[in-house]
Amino acid sequence: MFTVYNAEFVIRTKGKGTYEVTEKVAELVRASQVRTGLVNVFLQHTSASLLIFENADSSARRDLERFFERLVPEDATYFSHTMEGPDDMPSHIRMALTRTSESIPIADGQLRLGTWQGLFLYEHRAAGSERSLVVSVIGTTK
Amino acid sequence: MFTVYNAEFVIRTKGKGTYEVTEKVAELVRASQVRTGLVNVFLQHTSASLLIFENADSSARRDLERFFERLVPEDATYFSHTMEGPDDMPSHIRMALTRTSESIPIADGQLRLGTWQGLFLYEHRAAGSERSLVVSVIGTTK
Amino acid sequence: MFTVYNAEFVIRTKGKGTYEVTEKVAELVRASQVRTGLVNVFLQHTSASLLIFENADSSARRDLERFFERLVPEDATYFSHTMEGPDDMPSHIRMALTRTSESIPIADGQLRLGTWQGLFLYEHRAAGSERSLVVSVIGTTK
Repeated sequence: MFTVYNAEFVIRTKGKGTYEVTEKVAELVRASQVRTGLVNVFLQHTSASLLIFENADSSARRDLERFFERLVPEDATYFSHTMEGPDDMPSHIRMALTRTSESIPIADGQLRLGTWQGLFLYEHRAAGSERSLVVSVIGTTK
Repeated sequence: MFTVYNAEFVIRTKGKGTYEVTEKVAELVRASQVRTGLVNVFLQHTSASLLIFENADSSARRDLERFFERLVPEDATYFSHTMEGPDDMPSHIRMALTRTSESIPIADGQLRLGTWQGLFLYEHRAAGSERSLVVSVIGTTK
Repeated sequence: MFTVYNAEFVIRTKGKGTYEVTEKVAELVRASQVRTGLVNVFLQHTSASLLIFENADSSARRDLERFFERLVPEDATYFSHTMEGPDDMPSHIRMALTRTSESIPIADGQLRLGTWQGLFLYEHRAAGSERSLVVSVIGTTK
């Protein structure tokens, strides 16, 4: 039977960095009872992003963060959108360079991620925040 | 009832910059009668892109454009694909760094965007162009 | 009739560069018999990526690769994730800046790509590898 299953959840971040949400999404896919299909995970924010990234060695994620600190510096003199603090405009740009939503195929009721892939919420604001995600599962239940 | 609804529309851009298309997409979602599901918006071009971005303060979008002007300069001496003008190759790269399609969840017949999110067509060519978008709505009508 | 069709295929890459997979995806869409809907192509790796890009002139793809070689250099002194070779960490970052999956609308059983759009696997490792892709086709068969 064809199903569309929508669910939402919130992650409280504690500052810049990557927060894995793979298991939470896998749990919602199980709750949907979809066996074959696709899940889309959507982040409702413009100063954080989503990213499927290497999940085995956290040093890779730290290097990613260092790269983005350099690529989109907080002290760029040409920024005019500065009222919300020096980390706000770089947050929007780092979001633009990564993703607002990611889609993952589902087979046998499981996420068909590769061996080293995990889904991460990438927080770009120094203070962190409550971040809301919408999960849409579309597919057949048997 | 399960539905797949496809529609296309055209935006005439007048040069580099971001053009909001959120309301046009919301209108097509209403026309589809889908209450719960997902909409994918796809841009049929390689020198423009799509981006969900902060929609409240246009200064954030101008800063984004300034950032990309610096990140992918028009006068890079190593470009060989230059026959279509100095803004052509940077257009393709700026597209590669942003998105060709974006997916947005639908609940109660509405786009489940966050408070500050809007969907923008990001034109990278100096002259602008007619840009074609395909909207695919998948979900249940009640 | 509503259908979800999943298929997987493997591409053997021979080093850094872009490898077009448009025709393979179009073939699987035909096999699915979906006439109206959406196809998602998902890459199960974190050191290669997917990208819809200009398919007419291969010089545009070479310029893209040159740009990424400069943007994410292999000799960045601040990388700590270096055990898998100098091309590994830049591979992850170049993947983060492009895509893990791309979605393309289907109409009349055909991919609704623009005239100059093709779907490419972008290999970031110097040695190349076997790369697995999952194709999910969702839609109606008539």
